[in-house]
Amino acid sequence: MIIDCHGHYTTAPAPHQKFRDAQLKHFTDSSAPPPKPAEISDDEIRATIEENQLKLLKQRGADMTIFSPRASAMAHHEGDEKVSKAWTRACNDLIQRVTDLYPETFVGVCQLPQSPGVPIANSIEELKRCVLDLNMIGCNLNPDPSGGNWTSKPLTDRSWYPFYEAMCELDVPAMIHVSATCNENFHATGAHYINADTTAFMQLLQGDLFRDFPTLKFVIPHGGGAVPYHWGRYRGLADMLKKPDLRQHVMKNVFFDTCVYHQPGIDLLFEVIDVENILFGSEMVGAVRGIDPETGNYFDDTKRYIDRLSIPDARKQQVFEKNARRVYPRLDGILRARGL
Amino acid sequence: MIIDCHGHYTTAPAPHQKFRDAQLKHFTDSSAPPPKPAEISDDEIRATIEENQLKLLKQRGADMTIFSPRASAMAHHEGDEKVSKAWTRACNDLIQRVTDLYPETFVGVCQLPQSPGVPIANSIEELKRCVLDLNMIGCNLNPDPSGGNWTSKPLTDRSWYPFYEAMCELDVPAMIHVSATCNENFHATGAHYINADTTAFMQLLQGDLFRDFPTLKFVIPHGGGAVPYHWGRYRGLADMLKKPDLRQHVMKNVFFDTCVYHQPGIDLLFEVIDVENILFGSEMVGAVRGIDPETGNYFDDTKRYIDRLSIPDARKQQVFEKNARRVYPRLDGILRARGL
Repeated sequence: MIIDCHGHYTTAPAPHQKFRDAQLKHFTDSSAPPPKPAEISDDEIRATIEENQLKLLKQRGADMTIFSPRASAMAHHEGDEKVSKAWTRACNDLIQRVTDLYPETFVGVCQLPQSPGVPIANSIEELKRCVLDLNMIGCNLNPDPSGGNWTSKPLTDRSWYPFYEAMCELDVPAMIHVSATCNENFHATGAHYINADTTAFMQLLQGDLFRDFPTLKFVIPHGGGAVPYHWGRYRGLADMLKKPDLRQHVMKNVFFDTCVYHQPGIDLLFEVIDVENILFGSEMVGAVRGIDPETGNYFDDTKRYIDRLSIPDARKQQVFEKNARRVYPRLDGILRARGL
Repeated sequence: MIIDCHGHYTTAPAPHQKFRDAQLKHFTDSSAPPPKPAEISDDEIRATIEENQLKLLKQRGADMTIFSPRASAMAHHEGDEKVSKAWTRACNDLIQRVTDLYPETFVGVCQLPQSPGVPIANSIEELKRCVLDLNMIGCNLNPDPSGGNWTSKPLTDRSWYPFYEAMCELDVPAMIHVSATCNENFHATGAHYINADTTAFMQLLQGDLFRDFPTLKFVIPHGGGAVPYHWGRYRGLADMLKKPDLRQHVMKNVFFDTCVYHQPGIDLLFEVIDVENILFGSEMVGAVRGIDPETGNYFDDTKRYIDRLSIPDARKQQVFEKNARRVYPRLDGILRARGL
């Protein structure tokens, strides 16, 4: 089977965003009572999924998507912790609605109620709720809840450790994924996302996090940011910083997805990164929604690029399925229970 | 001939750094008179150059380096405008000393006296001094003089225009190059440099700067950051933002160097970026100084990667020489005057 590890509910019904708008309005003017999450019917959800992610998934020949709330809408820098909690809960509940409607196609990954300056430990409760009560299999962890001002500590700092302990206990990985930015220097999907991927990898290279958490797993999206293209630089920096070989030091715990939107980029990714560390992902109906005039296909139809690689089918199957089942053990459990 | 467009004086004699230390100390405690730039002999300069950049240049088979002050030491976020001016002047004067000692091998590019919150127009005077009096052929422009806090306006903002006017008038390009960072999230050479390259490109994609400055030229170093690896993403984002094709919109004015420290990265760069837009560069004795155990050669010996490309020699010659002479017209003038 073919599992897309990177999908967001970018097409959520409009009332969901209206709740968010009302919520942020209430944050600055609390004279009225706080708004409640939108009441959304199953049919509304079906319409937004069937015309978009589900249709494209089938057209492109994949079977399943690891699905999470819209990343750019997490916007942890808006409001405060209370606002972030209510918004996050509503977003995660909506993902559960999708996975309940289409259990064979969508499996959930949760957003976290992060907020700048608030301890990450405060996100453990929602992680547990999503994993234990809503059957989700992982989370999206924002290394910069300030939205582009990078006011948090690096991911290797001990302040993150309580959350990593919870992740290990629950046996779930995190995709490291930033959200919108409030710094006009950074276009969200063109700069901030890619920069965050690169930044996170370099933090992990500089530190020794996986010595303390040998079973902790991170997916760095968007093909690992700039890292595979500059793989020689990172190998050389590890050497200069007296770190072990990157395969030992970082790549037992870090995985890159295939959200790289052209053939030469995918070719490079597979040339320099071990196939064990690559998970199929497309982030479809996401950052880049158009059709590439050079190929006539969607930029984000990343399966086509992998199909065209001259590597054995067994290796492609690792990327399409096996690695995802290894990185997301709870997904593997769900699939096994179904005899898959 | 072979021109390396990206070299910094990373091996400047120790008294130069002592001046810097004294200068920053004086900034916080001005009870003593301000320190003066170090007195450095020609022999001291020769020793630092001949054992490093000059030796490696010859060993690797190049002829000339476009040489500028150490990028990580620009540190525009330290001190204030006055401090930055004095430091910048000392750094640029030292570059001139090198180019005077080795006029056939080194040609100068200047640092600018930027300082957070200070108008870039205040850097024009030093640019003019360096170009008109010291025969320099370009400058290093820092898009983030705050050192990782990104408090300036994007490069397409009109606040930068007076400086671009001066650049066009003098017919010099800028390499867009950040410096050290005071944000611990960003390793300087492993994250901040690459992120800045990506960020700058995306700013140029979002804007229409070259409509206002059709002759303005930027070199984005480190192989263009993450951009070539994600070239499909950038083509797709240009499309979504209703911008013209990137070749028309940005790539008449933007050039990438070859500071990508492994063969697959260079292969990708040449596969996706027109050869007209690529300048040979190594940033030797810079971010990555070790030897790649996989090849037995220096990571930053980028000429080897280009030598191994299966493209016609004439195209390599564009990258090794012709593009640099086109992007740096004053260099071309200097070489022509020598009959080269």
